[in-house]
Amino acid sequence: MRVAYADTDRAQVVHHATYFRFLEAARMELWRENGFDYNAFEQTTGLGLPVVEARLRYRIAARFDDLLEVETWVSRASRASVWFEGIVRRGNDVLNESSVRVACASFTDGTIRKIPDQLLDACLEPGHGI
Amino acid sequence: MRVAYADTDRAQVVHHATYFRFLEAARMELWRENGFDYNAFEQTTGLGLPVVEARLRYRIAARFDDLLEVETWVSRASRASVWFEGIVRRGNDVLNESSVRVACASFTDGTIRKIPDQLLDACLEPGHGI
Amino acid sequence: MRVAYADTDRAQVVHHATYFRFLEAARMELWRENGFDYNAFEQTTGLGLPVVEARLRYRIAARFDDLLEVETWVSRASRASVWFEGIVRRGNDVLNESSVRVACASFTDGTIRKIPDQLLDACLEPGHGI
Amino acid sequence: MRVAYADTDRAQVVHHATYFRFLEAARMELWRENGFDYNAFEQTTGLGLPVVEARLRYRIAARFDDLLEVETWVSRASRASVWFEGIVRRGNDVLNESSVRVACASFTDGTIRKIPDQLLDACLEPGHGI
Repeated sequence: MRVAYADTDRAQVVHHATYFRFLEAARMELWRENGFDYNAFEQTTGLGLPVVEARLRYRIAARFDDLLEVETWVSRASRASVWFEGIVRRGNDVLNESSVRVACASFTDGTIRKIPDQLLDACLEPGHGI
Repeated sequence: MRVAYADTDRAQVVHHATYFRFLEAARMELWRENGFDYNAFEQTTGLGLPVVEARLRYRIAARFDDLLEVETWVSRASRASVWFEGIVRRGNDVLNESSVRVACASFTDGTIRKIPDQLLDACLEPGHGI
Repeated sequence: MRVAYADTDRAQVVHHATYFRFLEAARMELWRENGFDYNAFEQTTGLGLPVVEARLRYRIAARFDDLLEVETWVSRASRASVWFEGIVRRGNDVLNESSVRVACASFTDGTIRKIPDQLLDACLEPGHGI
Repeated sequence: MRVAYADTDRAQVVHHATYFRFLEAARMELWRENGFDYNAFEQTTGLGLPVVEARLRYRIAARFDDLLEVETWVSRASRASVWFEGIVRRGNDVLNESSVRVACASFTDGTIRKIPDQLLDACLEPGHGI
């Protein structure tokens, strides 16, 4: 993942909010690799997976044009929510460590729903750190 | 309008894409002043006003914590589209001049629609430069 | 603080990363009220206050055009770092609760520095919840 | 280029400001392919290439998870400024057409400078549409 000019701020490093972009993209790719099409899921079920909790540790600043690697995996998953751990690396350096919890909600009325099987299966696929 | 840290980039100035934020907010306030509630309009009609064309001239860079003034007014309006002129100022300095054209589209099928009277009226309100 | 169209995402709510914008703006205003000019601080000292840790709980989604109130105050402060608590409200509803820790770093070499007195004083000003 | 959730807005399409992200990334890749390292250029010369003018036509809305192709090439180049034409495509559909003009400015004092040879050469490389 290449750091864009637009991702940086006046301190000449990546703005702290931008890491959510990186982590979101990594979750999408994890699902895609596990055969779960999040876009189709939203459109066919009317359900979404909003972030309900997040914890981030910023260790080293990323900079413009850096090539970053974002690793993500599920540490806990239930019908209520799924925790994604994330590590953003530049070469051997760990820049950011995070835990992001998503729940499942209906787009039409905003109510919280049980996480469907197809999503849990895609999260619990072996080989992604559980 | 106060420039946020998140609005800046590594060049220590406001990123060129951020001016669209300023202009969008100014259009919303113009409508609000003219008694047109854009949010309610979207929800009751299922129509939106996407930007279909934009021209921007960047003259002086805005910086973090600057207090900017954004003036906007309608220069041309028809059933097909409305042109908003915009000027971003810091004190007496003109930082950015722009023309942004919006059309009217249905959210459900994306098709272009005629701009409703209530919106045209709100754009053509006297005292905003037409 | 008015929610902009650009702050929302396809789920028709405010994107989770956007709350960092709200919280950052609130910290700046807290400092400003306490007589601490963060912008001048950066320029005269060559020091900045990067976010090094953050925890956020998203309880209710903010939506386009909402008028939000963001309350922030310092819960702990030392020479090493300062914790800001934050609450984003819409009317009586608490939408988001957060804790954000900032440290002090040199822009020239990125090294961590002690937080200067003037900043600690501005954080510990009475009447902001300590 | 994959459209991120964060790139979309409440109208469930890509926000108009986001296209500047796509175009900026494409300019960086054009330079990289032509052997010009923009990041190194900024750091060694103290010069940057701010956008000074932009014209965009939005024809079809991009949506979440779309795979976009962004083509960019230089149409005019002088010591004063360089015009980049850009086309954003999804399959055979042209979503956005743009012209973006960049100039050269000093980071230390903000003054406009002549565009250096190494940059002009990288822009005028054959095979990118001139």
